[in-house]
Order: sequence, then C-alpha cells, then structure tokens
Amino acid sequence: MIKVLRLGHRRGRDDRISTHVGLTARQWGADEVVFSGEKDSKMLESQRDIIDRWGGNTDIRYTEDWRSEIRDFEGLKVHLTMYGLKIDKEVEGLKSRFEDGEDLLVVVGSEKVPRWVYHNVDYNISVGNQPHSEIAALAVFMDRIIGLEEDFEGADVFVRPSKDQKLTRKN
Amino acid sequence: MIKVLRLGHRRGRDDRISTHVGLTARQWGADEVVFSGEKDSKMLESQRDIIDRWGGNTDIRYTEDWRSEIRDFEGLKVHLTMYGLKIDKEVEGLKSRFEDGEDLLVVVGSEKVPRWVYHNVDYNISVGNQPHSEIAALAVFMDRIIGLEEDFEGADVFVRPSKDQKLTRKN
Repeated sequence: MIKVLRLGHRRGRDDRISTHVGLTARQWGADEVVFSGEKDSKMLESQRDIIDRWGGNTDIRYTEDWRSEIRDFEGLKVHLTMYGLKIDKEVEGLKSRFEDGEDLLVVVGSEKVPRWVYHNVDYNISVGNQPHSEIAALAVFMDRIIGLEEDFEGADVFVRPSKDQKLTRKN
Repeated sequence: MIKVLRLGHRRGRDDRISTHVGLTARQWGADEVVFSGEKDSKMLESQRDIIDRWGGNTDIRYTEDWRSEIRDFEGLKVHLTMYGLKIDKEVEGLKSRFEDGEDLLVVVGSEKVPRWVYHNVDYNISVGNQPHSEIAALAVFMDRIIGLEEDFEGADVFVRPSKDQKLTRKN
C-alpha cells in the first residue's frame, strides 16, 4: 500500500502543481493521495474525473490534519526534500523494505515544510540536492522504488502506444 | 550535449510548471533549456537567478521558432508524450545511442502538441500511457537515460545532505 501526502496546497497558485502531484502519484502506483493546506474541492474533483475516465483505484482526498496522516501511518515514512540524504545511497535499502511488504508513505512539500516533518518521518531523502520540483522528485523516487504502473482497472479509455500518432480506444 | 525544448508556454497559467520543467532539466544534466509559446521574461529570469546562485552552466533561453529548434538539431530527437511507445521497451536503445556520443533533444509539450512534432522527431516516447505531468515524464526519462547530475560549477550555495536538518554552506 502506497500513500502520498502533499503538504501546503494553496488555492489558485498551486492548482496545477498539485494536480500533477496527484496524477504522478497515480501513474507510479499510489493507492491514496492526500492533500493538505487550503481545501480546494475543484482541484480534487478534476483529479477524480480523470481517474474515473482512465481507471484505477487511486483514492484522492483532503485532510486538515496532516500531522495525523504522518504520525498514525504504519509503515515506512519518507519525506522528499532537497536537504535530505542522497537517494543514490538510500534507494536499495528503501526498495528492499518496500518489497518485503512494508507500506510506504511519501510526503512532498511546498515552499516551506515545517521542521516537525523532518523529525517525524523515517527518512528525509533528496532526489538531487538542488532546487527543482516536487513532481520530479516524487516521480523519480517512485520510479526507482516501484516502477511504472501499467494496469488501471475499469478505464473508459486506453492509449494504444504508437510510433507517431495519438491513438486511443474506448471500452 | 542535452537540449530540452518546452513547447507552448502560456504566461501566468504555466509559470510554475515551466519553471519546474527548466529546473528539472538542469537537475538531470541538460546543457540548454529552450522555451517557446508566449514570451515570458520574468519566468526565464527567475530560472537564471536560481542557476546563478546554485551553479552550473545550463543555458535558459526563449525562441519563437520552435520548429527550427527541432528541425536543425543534429542528434537524437525524442518527444515525450502519453501516446508514444513505451519507455520500458525503448530505453536501452536510446541509452546506448546517448552513451555512444549522440546529442539528445528532449521535447515536452503542453496541452496540445501539433502533429508536426510527432512526425519530425526520431521517437515519440511515453513515460506511462496515462495523463500525468510533463515534469514527471521529463524527470523519469532523463533519470533512466542519464541519471542525476551532482556537479554544479561555480555555485554560491550548497546543500549538505542531512538525516533530518536543512543544512547549507556558502562558497
């Protein structure tokens, strides 16, 4: 079981970034994506609409109480931050723990992540010690630990991979 | 040599997504990031400011003539799209060509990418055949072909990777 927690969403300013976080989490196999910060029903609904159409069971929800999402999670808790330990050094250990059956919580932040987060996860991991993107960090972390998810149950529409065309088929 | 071309930037709406594209390209070793669509000097400047501070030689620039950026590029031209061939099947071939010394152009789009692009690159590649994020697609593609770039010359500030703190040092 994989849960992704997105901290500090701001309505308007973060709409598209948060949507990319949610859909990226889904593409790499997250079962649940939880958003905190400002409540933004439109952003959540637009993700649910995409999931309805493209399938799979990723659950999208909002919480005010993000501390409980971290504190009460039973499993391996990883916060992605440019200040953390290098992924290249930690990935094998984390991957084994996940493959041995531990549930995984991946926390991604916004501009300012409270110190509390750094102290209440098992690992602070950097996907590059440079400023870039929480979407990139999440995608590469999950790609290295889990790999791409290909199987989305109950989809209304599928892509037929093509050399040079945009092909879809409907269910 | 690696060039990333970001198509169809829209001022306002795409500011942050395009900034994430540029900084992600830099984190995975791009020498040059070219933006097309609406000209947005503020977005380009903010990336240049980050690069000044954090080092490296990634060149950030704007073009109106994105077709020439693709047509005149000498090397391997890859467009990332959810409609393309699966990365899992193509990655080894692309990686060998890059490692054998071919220059690499990676094109990432916005909402609507003209058909011209599909027909004027060497490969249309999907990083998952699902809707997600051009930032995620770019990061994972480059992570699989090249890996993280660690060495950024001339930086004013560095992160000291830490288990649970935010540590930086200045040059």
